[in-house]
Amino acid sequence: MGSLMLGCVTNFFTYETTKSVVVKSWSVGIINRLVQLLIIIYFVGWVFIHEKAYQVTDTGIESSVMTKVKGFGYHNDRVMDVADYVFPQQGADIFCIMTKLIVTENQFQGKCEEFGEKFSCTTDKDCHKHFGNILANGVITGVCIQPSNNTKNGQCEIEGWCPAENDDQAKIRPMIDVNNFTIFIKNSIRFPLFNVTRGNFPTTMTATEIRSCTYHPETHPFCPIFRVGDVLNYTGQNVDALASQGGEIGINIEWKCNLDLDIDYCVPKYSFTRLDAPFAKNAISKGYNFRFAKYFKTENGTDFRTLHKAFAIRFDVMVTGNAGKFNTIPTLINLVAAFTSVGLGTVLCDIILLNFLKGAEQYKAKKFEEVSEAQIEASLAQSPGSQLSLKPCIKSSYDSGAISLATSY
Amino acid sequence: MGSLMLGCVTNFFTYETTKSVVVKSWSVGIINRLVQLLIIIYFVGWVFIHEKAYQVTDTGIESSVMTKVKGFGYHNDRVMDVADYVFPQQGADIFCIMTKLIVTENQFQGKCEEFGEKFSCTTDKDCHKHFGNILANGVITGVCIQPSNNTKNGQCEIEGWCPAENDDQAKIRPMIDVNNFTIFIKNSIRFPLFNVTRGNFPTTMTATEIRSCTYHPETHPFCPIFRVGDVLNYTGQNVDALASQGGEIGINIEWKCNLDLDIDYCVPKYSFTRLDAPFAKNAISKGYNFRFAKYFKTENGTDFRTLHKAFAIRFDVMVTGNAGKFNTIPTLINLVAAFTSVGLGTVLCDIILLNFLKGAEQYKAKKFEEVSEAQIEASLAQSPGSQLSLKPCIKSSYDSGAISLATSY
Amino acid sequence: MGSLMLGCVTNFFTYETTKSVVVKSWSVGIINRLVQLLIIIYFVGWVFIHEKAYQVTDTGIESSVMTKVKGFGYHNDRVMDVADYVFPQQGADIFCIMTKLIVTENQFQGKCEEFGEKFSCTTDKDCHKHFGNILANGVITGVCIQPSNNTKNGQCEIEGWCPAENDDQAKIRPMIDVNNFTIFIKNSIRFPLFNVTRGNFPTTMTATEIRSCTYHPETHPFCPIFRVGDVLNYTGQNVDALASQGGEIGINIEWKCNLDLDIDYCVPKYSFTRLDAPFAKNAISKGYNFRFAKYFKTENGTDFRTLHKAFAIRFDVMVTGNAGKFNTIPTLINLVAAFTSVGLGTVLCDIILLNFLKGAEQYKAKKFEEVSEAQIEASLAQSPGSQLSLKPCIKSSYDSGAISLATSY
Repeated sequence: MGSLMLGCVTNFFTYETTKSVVVKSWSVGIINRLVQLLIIIYFVGWVFIHEKAYQVTDTGIESSVMTKVKGFGYHNDRVMDVADYVFPQQGADIFCIMTKLIVTENQFQGKCEEFGEKFSCTTDKDCHKHFGNILANGVITGVCIQPSNNTKNGQCEIEGWCPAENDDQAKIRPMIDVNNFTIFIKNSIRFPLFNVTRGNFPTTMTATEIRSCTYHPETHPFCPIFRVGDVLNYTGQNVDALASQGGEIGINIEWKCNLDLDIDYCVPKYSFTRLDAPFAKNAISKGYNFRFAKYFKTENGTDFRTLHKAFAIRFDVMVTGNAGKFNTIPTLINLVAAFTSVGLGTVLCDIILLNFLKGAEQYKAKKFEEVSEAQIEASLAQSPGSQLSLKPCIKSSYDSGAISLATSY
Repeated sequence: MGSLMLGCVTNFFTYETTKSVVVKSWSVGIINRLVQLLIIIYFVGWVFIHEKAYQVTDTGIESSVMTKVKGFGYHNDRVMDVADYVFPQQGADIFCIMTKLIVTENQFQGKCEEFGEKFSCTTDKDCHKHFGNILANGVITGVCIQPSNNTKNGQCEIEGWCPAENDDQAKIRPMIDVNNFTIFIKNSIRFPLFNVTRGNFPTTMTATEIRSCTYHPETHPFCPIFRVGDVLNYTGQNVDALASQGGEIGINIEWKCNLDLDIDYCVPKYSFTRLDAPFAKNAISKGYNFRFAKYFKTENGTDFRTLHKAFAIRFDVMVTGNAGKFNTIPTLINLVAAFTSVGLGTVLCDIILLNFLKGAEQYKAKKFEEVSEAQIEASLAQSPGSQLSLKPCIKSSYDSGAISLATSY
Repeated sequence: MGSLMLGCVTNFFTYETTKSVVVKSWSVGIINRLVQLLIIIYFVGWVFIHEKAYQVTDTGIESSVMTKVKGFGYHNDRVMDVADYVFPQQGADIFCIMTKLIVTENQFQGKCEEFGEKFSCTTDKDCHKHFGNILANGVITGVCIQPSNNTKNGQCEIEGWCPAENDDQAKIRPMIDVNNFTIFIKNSIRFPLFNVTRGNFPTTMTATEIRSCTYHPETHPFCPIFRVGDVLNYTGQNVDALASQGGEIGINIEWKCNLDLDIDYCVPKYSFTRLDAPFAKNAISKGYNFRFAKYFKTENGTDFRTLHKAFAIRFDVMVTGNAGKFNTIPTLINLVAAFTSVGLGTVLCDIILLNFLKGAEQYKAKKFEEVSEAQIEASLAQSPGSQLSLKPCIKSSYDSGAISLATSY
């Protein structure tokens, strides 16, 4: 029994290596090496160097954006400052600069006539079809208010804030001065996987440098102050149309960081897009506008409000990015894939060697050793007892199956 | 020396292929092919077709959401419009529709009595325990204000905006009309990795089509206008409870794009959830409410305000998604894994062949060629000089180790 | 023809396994097993157990955050409550607590003098250089307003809201009470890939428990109520500086969920950072402030406003996280990589065996069987006819190339 144990241990500490046929043929040899070379070039050049398959990537970028707009504009003969035209005021990543306001002053709760051709009427019945219309300025009561002079059509009555907003009123000049406004963007990001924190302008920039610069893709790529006119230019937009109809502009800050290099190379890249571009072909909801109201009280306590329909340029500061850093797991998996792929050359060479080369049959005979059931049975008939000789070590044979897989790699 | 060089070059341009044993046995042959077939089916069907392992995926979706609510509701006998009940007004991805307002008018800075049983008192001492209480409506002064008629208990005094809010006051009917409000959602997304931009409704949809449609999962899956009542229905919510207590509804827009297909198949999928569902079991903070104030000035310049406790339905438009596109790297890695896995069949077959088949010992003898240290030493004793014959080409031998790995794949 | 078919079928159902050389050498055997053991330990311990390479990961966490601040503070001898100092009021993931307000009351549209040394002048010419200056409080008109008593310099005139804001005015005491304010955070998240929804506090927590607790990293790690003073402490900030200059604080909620375990282990982890830390070295824009205005109307309908320059502590609740769950694809790919890597030991052992071991030449002779073109040609000359014998089954030979790849794995 002791010697059997020893036999098993001896069997375990053996080394299995595949038996190889070395074909000394220039044609197959060169093809073999060429294919291997191509595969190696592909892996080194593309997979490792270009696609950085040796890195693990953090895509869960954490970002905080602070914005501040500066500038003055004239609208309706009044000077508008930041507190007037920016909404929301706290300097978030999404903010609007209002460029045109349709103001309806002194609205009180009550009943009055709706504006617009669509709501003209001659009898109450004409108004009933508008019941529940959500495009009116209030709840349709179903009454047709006749004009005092009776010369033209009446208008349907609404209940709500009166007088109703009339947005067909004489053209209001938008605030074109928006062109000269500046946006200051402070963006700090973090890659939680690598615990790396970065800001969107270099720590070496002094306050004076920052205050006096304006972003330019080539000359000042890291200046955090953006002229609105420039931003609109980069997106190919016409400031007149945008200021008058409103629009949505995306300011994208992209962080692509290779943390295997010095951290100073981890810098933002800005790009600018018109966000409503996918809807350019639909005629609906061109531009961007919203309504808000300022509320007042009369001396005797009655509420009234001033309604504003604001056409605005909305800026969305969107931060995206990822960071890569060397990591053993993807490196190993890709290395193994690379090594394994190098072996794919063998498939091609085997096909050539065994089929198309002069003497293919001879190569086949050398490569393949045949053993058929018939042979085995014949040899078994001659020596029936030999089979049991190694039985106690059956586990080592199972192992040998697994090893043959392993060692054949 | 020249001939040695030539020898090395000749050695390099050789082709090594594994020597194989071909077992002509139906049983092992069929098992071998069956296992290979199963592995191939698994890889082709599951890994490649179902899981699209040949694609690289962009999960860093960039999204911009614009929303617009329309509709009129009655609250407290007044007509409320968008400017009254939506907050914030600029049409962001997170917005609230206020459905119930507890209004406390004409608050001035000063001292007054707090409301509620909890703050009732008979002496000042009763109020001292409330010092620093942040659930009161102001700073507890520690004074107990006795009621004028002295028949019931007094109330603790607070300093702050007076009179204090009394949210136990007679039930206010919530604005149930919210059911008929509509939400228009404009969502444009971008997959930065592939630079693909999409909007949430087809460019072929005309303005009239959009204005007249209402989203329905089956009949109008791409209509961007959502009736609030429908949305609440989809989440299984009761509008009465929600309008009265407030709540948080998630509108999820999911983009799952296979960019190997036509871009027109890259469309959004909407789903609706109640976001505070994970907290349903906790009794705290059911619903959703917040406080805001409108500020006024009296004629003589004193500030006063109207405090609103707003119960609101908050909608979070959340955009998620990813896009996949064919890429050589994952394809290659998975192909190699597939090919390699096919070889796993050999492990099983080897175990069967070498252990359980009739004539296993004979197969073993065919597959394995043994060479022991003893043999080698014996042969070395006979011809001690032969070992040096190839020494100058030792590098080619090192190489041969690596090649044996490579070619054995 | 029928027998040829049968031949091909028989050829197909054969089993090819590599012929191996078993080296019974203790030295190589032990090295072989040691290398294999190291590789296995690496894969099991690091790749599988530590890095969880058997899981698929969902990084596209969906999150909804609701916040509520409570507390009272004194500012300018007035009590401020939530409606006064929180902006925006709806309880979003980004909110500001205003701690210092520079209030400029009763601003009317008009012309008046700018404040500050920088805008002092003696003649109109001195003011012309300021044309277009966006750091003034209005549009520079180019006029120099002489002081009434003529003893000191004049100031440049601006057009806009008058009087201009004077932020150099006597120090205003910030609202230090902010220290005792509490922030309640309700965060519900979802991993769309696995459709798992979680809330940031356990469902077993009762309303009373929640109301009475305060977050503490060790004693109450799941309490959703945060004392502002504590949060500032965790980030190492001085409350006085922050309340006076403003600042940005990040509250990070990190979800790292192993969904192979019980869902109850999927809990949030809070951390706190000062977000403007990357800009600490730049002297610009220290702190955080923004301007907003409250609008009023005089009896006769003239608009006027109160401008506020608000220094605020901004809190960004940022939710990040990922969830992993067992999945066959990464498991398989990594298993195959592991198995394949085990075979890498062969490279090392082959190099030792074939170069450095005593009897290397003999091992080489055993491992490699040489076949050169010369030999093949010689044997072809002897039996030129034999080559055609198997031609009809050429496809099976092609197949054999592929199989030799497959089976050699």
